[in-house]
Amino acid sequence: MELNKEQIAERFKNLQQYICDYLEGVDGKATFNSDVWVREAGGGGRTNTMTDGNVIEKGGVAFSAVFGPVSEQMKTSLLVDGTEFFATGVSIVIHPSNPHVPIIHMNVRYFEYDNGKRYWFGGGIDLTPHYVVPEQAKSFHLSLKEICDKYNSEFYPKFKNWADDYFFQPHRNETRGIGGIFYDHIDETSGLSKEQLLNFAVDLGEAFPKIYETQVNLGKDKPASARELDWRNTRRGRYVEFNLLHDRGTKFGLHSNGRTESILMSLPKDASWEYMKPIEAGSEEEKTLSLLTKGIDWINQ
Amino acid sequence: MELNKEQIAERFKNLQQYICDYLEGVDGKATFNSDVWVREAGGGGRTNTMTDGNVIEKGGVAFSAVFGPVSEQMKTSLLVDGTEFFATGVSIVIHPSNPHVPIIHMNVRYFEYDNGKRYWFGGGIDLTPHYVVPEQAKSFHLSLKEICDKYNSEFYPKFKNWADDYFFQPHRNETRGIGGIFYDHIDETSGLSKEQLLNFAVDLGEAFPKIYETQVNLGKDKPASARELDWRNTRRGRYVEFNLLHDRGTKFGLHSNGRTESILMSLPKDASWEYMKPIEAGSEEEKTLSLLTKGIDWINQ
Repeated sequence: MELNKEQIAERFKNLQQYICDYLEGVDGKATFNSDVWVREAGGGGRTNTMTDGNVIEKGGVAFSAVFGPVSEQMKTSLLVDGTEFFATGVSIVIHPSNPHVPIIHMNVRYFEYDNGKRYWFGGGIDLTPHYVVPEQAKSFHLSLKEICDKYNSEFYPKFKNWADDYFFQPHRNETRGIGGIFYDHIDETSGLSKEQLLNFAVDLGEAFPKIYETQVNLGKDKPASARELDWRNTRRGRYVEFNLLHDRGTKFGLHSNGRTESILMSLPKDASWEYMKPIEAGSEEEKTLSLLTKGIDWINQ
Repeated sequence: MELNKEQIAERFKNLQQYICDYLEGVDGKATFNSDVWVREAGGGGRTNTMTDGNVIEKGGVAFSAVFGPVSEQMKTSLLVDGTEFFATGVSIVIHPSNPHVPIIHMNVRYFEYDNGKRYWFGGGIDLTPHYVVPEQAKSFHLSLKEICDKYNSEFYPKFKNWADDYFFQPHRNETRGIGGIFYDHIDETSGLSKEQLLNFAVDLGEAFPKIYETQVNLGKDKPASARELDWRNTRRGRYVEFNLLHDRGTKFGLHSNGRTESILMSLPKDASWEYMKPIEAGSEEEKTLSLLTKGIDWINQ
């Protein structure tokens, strides 16, 4: 029998638990608080959040499985022609306190309408370093490529470019960070079965905390100066701009009467804005800005 | 001869200067830095900003006068059917450091297309207290009503409701602050001539720093606790949400290749987000949240 939506939601729910347990180990101090909520129009979720850890200043790992009638807006934005939708996924954003540890985001999602008449998967992992370090970006991209290559050798190059295009801020002419992979509306026309696509999503999800652990360990013991903390908050300000101005998930959630606190758990504890912030020539901040650009081949730099 | 666009831009430019001089007096310490810029597609502006004053932590008073071809997006969003537009205005956002002094916003703008074939004015002043104090809200609204009543007794009630509707955050079910007045697309069908509409805009603009001075003096000497500073940053977070998610001026500016730093001068130095921030029963924070609602008659409470 073909995989059904309840089974997919169950795998994602377990994935959330797996990731939270692992991240608690990575942090070594804080634990997740769990918040179970019900959506009036159908379904609900569990939002797990962590604050003031050794490493993680503010982090959220959210699971949801929601369903209901397809709205006019969904027809336009998701190109759905059905009447009932079902959507489930896991979404993560982690804001570390140390500016030498990057912000990370992961999402895996499954969408179907009219009880499976059509379905697709989407997802990805991307990294937003406060300071871009090319060797760390290379290690990150290599890990993603390794998972992709197990499923389809075309995935990594395709999804890497997709991430470059998606995590881009036209109003700043900057990428959000060093990208990663992003995919959406992927179904069996990819050559993979529904079960394989789910396995790909879960593999990505299970690799996520290990990948982040590597990034954490590369930066967490570096001391942070006042200037670096200030830059961290400026970079967080850009992250807020992306999420509120451009991110489709945030827009879709807020416009479809989603749970605001769960959607906006992606925002950092503190962010700053300075008008025309001066950037010193030859500084690490200038170097980072120069690397916030599309199309960098991080693996073969 | 009828008032032309150059004359209107000149009045607005002088208004910017007047307001900046007055605000420097209100602050008593910091002065404005002036940044003149040119828009590639036509026109330019002068963005004046102030930081780290006695009262004003981050404030901007921007003048611009821009022109160019009418884009497809402008046709949709501004319902323009012409080919060339001209837009000039003064925009202000002030973020004070003391949580007992409110955030304030003012904008006056003039738009025309095809060399005056059609024109309109828009504008308004609204107040976003970190802590809502009904008596201070009353004084603020009374000042606005007084100016409106000099031109048309229907303006204040109409523009007050318009502000309630405009400065509303559906995803929070909250108003941004205590409103004020907001108007848009007002032309001679209002019963006022072009010259009277310009005088109304300039009257509002000249009253602005006096009105803010009153608000500043009511709060600036109150001590601020750590808790109140934390709440200030949370309220600033909501302000960021409004400006990036809902504000039409911000959207229009960013999507029409406006000058990003001038558009986003409205964002505060520091803002915070806390997941499901607990609000103590009976606290001042709870009282403020209960007053962030449409339709309060602040004058006759």
